[in-house]
Amino acid sequence: MSTSPVSARGERMYDESGGFAPQAARADAAGPAASAKPAPGTESATDARPPRRITILDSTLRDGAQGEDISFSVGDKLHIVEELDVFGLDYIEAGNPGSNPKDLEFFAKVADAQPKRAELCAFGATRRHGIAVKDDTNVQSILAANTPVVVIFGKSSSLHVTEILRTTHEENLRMIADTVAYFKGLGKTVIYDAEHFFDGYCGVGGSSEYALSTLKAAQDAGADIIVLCDTNGGMLPHRIYEATREVVAALGEDTPVGIHAHNDSGCAVANSIAAVEAGATHVQGTFIGFGERCGNADLSSILPALVLKMGCDVRGDLPRLSETASAIAEISNVIMPNGKPYVGVSAFSHKAGMHADGVLKNPISFEHIDPATVGNERRFLVSEVAGRGGVLERVKSFAPTLTKSSPELAAILERLKELEHKGYQFEAADASFELMAKKVLGTYTPHFKVTFYKSIGEFPAGSDDLPSTATIEIEVDGSTEIAAAKGHGPVHALDIALRKALTVFYPQLNDMQLVDYKVRVLEQRDATAAQVRVLIESSDAHTSWTTIGVSDDILEASFLALVDSLEYKLAGDTPTKKG
Amino acid sequence: MSTSPVSARGERMYDESGGFAPQAARADAAGPAASAKPAPGTESATDARPPRRITILDSTLRDGAQGEDISFSVGDKLHIVEELDVFGLDYIEAGNPGSNPKDLEFFAKVADAQPKRAELCAFGATRRHGIAVKDDTNVQSILAANTPVVVIFGKSSSLHVTEILRTTHEENLRMIADTVAYFKGLGKTVIYDAEHFFDGYCGVGGSSEYALSTLKAAQDAGADIIVLCDTNGGMLPHRIYEATREVVAALGEDTPVGIHAHNDSGCAVANSIAAVEAGATHVQGTFIGFGERCGNADLSSILPALVLKMGCDVRGDLPRLSETASAIAEISNVIMPNGKPYVGVSAFSHKAGMHADGVLKNPISFEHIDPATVGNERRFLVSEVAGRGGVLERVKSFAPTLTKSSPELAAILERLKELEHKGYQFEAADASFELMAKKVLGTYTPHFKVTFYKSIGEFPAGSDDLPSTATIEIEVDGSTEIAAAKGHGPVHALDIALRKALTVFYPQLNDMQLVDYKVRVLEQRDATAAQVRVLIESSDAHTSWTTIGVSDDILEASFLALVDSLEYKLAGDTPTKKG
Repeated sequence: MSTSPVSARGERMYDESGGFAPQAARADAAGPAASAKPAPGTESATDARPPRRITILDSTLRDGAQGEDISFSVGDKLHIVEELDVFGLDYIEAGNPGSNPKDLEFFAKVADAQPKRAELCAFGATRRHGIAVKDDTNVQSILAANTPVVVIFGKSSSLHVTEILRTTHEENLRMIADTVAYFKGLGKTVIYDAEHFFDGYCGVGGSSEYALSTLKAAQDAGADIIVLCDTNGGMLPHRIYEATREVVAALGEDTPVGIHAHNDSGCAVANSIAAVEAGATHVQGTFIGFGERCGNADLSSILPALVLKMGCDVRGDLPRLSETASAIAEISNVIMPNGKPYVGVSAFSHKAGMHADGVLKNPISFEHIDPATVGNERRFLVSEVAGRGGVLERVKSFAPTLTKSSPELAAILERLKELEHKGYQFEAADASFELMAKKVLGTYTPHFKVTFYKSIGEFPAGSDDLPSTATIEIEVDGSTEIAAAKGHGPVHALDIALRKALTVFYPQLNDMQLVDYKVRVLEQRDATAAQVRVLIESSDAHTSWTTIGVSDDILEASFLALVDSLEYKLAGDTPTKKG
Repeated sequence: MSTSPVSARGERMYDESGGFAPQAARADAAGPAASAKPAPGTESATDARPPRRITILDSTLRDGAQGEDISFSVGDKLHIVEELDVFGLDYIEAGNPGSNPKDLEFFAKVADAQPKRAELCAFGATRRHGIAVKDDTNVQSILAANTPVVVIFGKSSSLHVTEILRTTHEENLRMIADTVAYFKGLGKTVIYDAEHFFDGYCGVGGSSEYALSTLKAAQDAGADIIVLCDTNGGMLPHRIYEATREVVAALGEDTPVGIHAHNDSGCAVANSIAAVEAGATHVQGTFIGFGERCGNADLSSILPALVLKMGCDVRGDLPRLSETASAIAEISNVIMPNGKPYVGVSAFSHKAGMHADGVLKNPISFEHIDPATVGNERRFLVSEVAGRGGVLERVKSFAPTLTKSSPELAAILERLKELEHKGYQFEAADASFELMAKKVLGTYTPHFKVTFYKSIGEFPAGSDDLPSTATIEIEVDGSTEIAAAKGHGPVHALDIALRKALTVFYPQLNDMQLVDYKVRVLEQRDATAAQVRVLIESSDAHTSWTTIGVSDDILEASFLALVDSLEYKLAGDTPTKKG
């Protein structure tokens, strides 16, 4: 999916190492600047030691499900397991069967569709106070999930022991030890999550001595990994670094230490990185940062930093990073922010004229990594700020003779500015941009004209449960065609009627379909009379394209985007017009 | 806007210092854990020295305008200056008059509406190579902006000097020195931005010696603040910390050093904090993180960390933080992510049943700061994951006798689950949640019934330019009323017709208005037949409320949300029914 100059650089970077080499020639690698010393724990590109192996646990399906807009069906969860497994992480924490009975249904179903590379984990609390492990329904639910790995969480801060659990410090230590030992006795891999560890260790409702003693309880009971959690997400990186370094020293070399960060201070990525610098070898997060409140540590930002900037050995197919992130967003029905580091559509987009110029001269000038290493790509945005260079770059495929000083280019920029003023944004709508530019250049002839439409929505709906009807009249080369259709809503009915009329003349339209429909209300304060921007993505067997329409009538905005979508398809095809 | 237990804690925190005290009793403050040493440069709460003063520059209007979806009108910019000024930062970087002529129009207009507390800055490049300062049109545009402060950027990396500017190393130093000296000679405050400083200093297309020499050129010419920029945004915190510490030492105590970070590695907030720890005393960013690619450093996360967690002295009315962030998002027509640290609506929202329980027992258990200190508030989300505790919390205002074990509570949860399955989300739609719960409890009687509607959208529109017509029939206590209306689109026409019919019976509906209308397409792959979720926010003189409708027909989804909105208003008012 990358453009050729990017690939060329990508290959250069891959040639010598045959894998993901630390970026010796890019930002944040150990370069020739002798005075910029790598921080403790950071591998440099010239280091002869083998890269440190860091294991990764994804909790999208467990902690991610606590996110405000997130609600997974069992089917969604199975899909996400598949995506994560293809990407290739170490552990997938897939549910909390004790507190969410729906999760047991999922674990039963996933038994027939076990991930091939990752190990599944069930998550849950230590036994309750005063109850034996075997009699604790929560512990037994974790066992019933039948996963090779269990993640057990316990309390590290006095405040949580006495005020929230309402038990004693000693019983809390026994709860941790008993539960870890129980699962170890059953042959499980046990990851121990020390909830609120940093709060307790740094004196917020606890003491460092007690916090450490909870870790030792888990260690003595045989826990395979001990994970330090910033459950409230308020820590800053220097505090995480110091505390983790001290824990690593206290627990000794043989016990892997992990980090579980939340993003309430906006530092979850940096906090995870700081812990790895301090000696942690296990990182927990969610693939695109889902999670309660401000989210969990975002693995899509942490993984490339560990691999490309710190030279760590991390499992996972990094060039699939962007694709996996998009797939998880789509399954979760969440729109990924454009500006998401590494994986967002804007992560390597250049809007300022000067930046676009710089990247064309040498990509390293305004890109911190090669977008192809994370499966993303460079884009040049079209906007009035982009300047002539950016627009020239986007018209060159269909108007190769234009130059920066062509008056036609100035005319396109002028029209762009006018339409942007009305609420159009062509940054995503490549097909509408091309049609607009061709109209300005006079190289475009519309294939049809709509002379009339009417779309009716009614309540109650008729017996077929389709509440909308549309009628449309079009003209092609002097011939008129009128068509009618019913649909789920007035836009849907109009869409069907328009295609029905058009395919009489252009049967090739049967090959294309609409794959995405987005509505954005502009100036929301005008409520139901507000301007709306509609984006439609269409595809055929070969390609996909996006068109835009803006109006204070949602029907008209949709209609405009629809007409552009059909025109773009017709403009790109060899004419096979009939009739 | 905070609930009472929060205020109580907030007051306690404010009592002793009379201002923003470092959070001695909260996360990341220097607590009793003797082993957790504060990092170098970090003030601790028990430190007797006065807090370090950090100046802040907001570049929402300049670097923020490079964001992909951002396009400011002159009016928008004037509004944002006002918001930032009321909040009370030090510097507002408001435009780049050399590269964007529209910015000069803005600077002319703002002359009559000068900010009262902040100082305005114009931004631009050093003179071009081979051209005298006085003859450089770009430099003269900066001067024409007539601001007390100018921000001049120059190049620090060899790569940029030779490949992008295509000049010599020596001429680049003269360009920096001449331009800074020119503005100093005119009595301006000059902030010098060292573009690509970290890349150059760390050996990505440059050397640390040359990078330092560019800073010294600016220092010798009299620059008031020297700002180190991570222009490509790829740095990690430890590298920023080391390099900034070295620069602070090299430039000496009398020259304030600043940080300008971009978020391409997801670490812009942490990088800014690391620079302050290393001795920087000036931070540049954009209020809510707008900016090219992945955005600039987000001041709404940095400011509370500096004040509440690091004890720095920063200008700005922190309890206005959330309100200012929302206002800027609204003026910019951008939807702020719910999970935005500190200022997002979810930043202090509790969904997991266990977390909600913990916060009710002691807020410190699951909140890293008191939400009131940043003008935000705690919320309990209603969802099937929330469990009985969360739902109980939300029904107690209208069903105070229910308990956790009431069968009615179970019935509400059951209905909630059913509706969530269909695509409803009541987390934001408080009014629809209340109506739904009251329907389940049998304590709600609808005030009207819609027996029929028809809404028609047509092209071409009639002579009044209103393309849509709607007819509706309603029934109130056996009386029937039919009404018709025209509108900008089928939803708008239906909205007007429904209110027209209803006000015959309920004149008090004239007091309310719709203030916000949002459309979210679910399962976008079904294109124009996809499910849509409509949220409508309404208000009257006293309060505002949000309702929801879900359907595969956008007209029906809007209609359902509209009916709930009107019903909620009628349910809350003393009946004044006529007719």
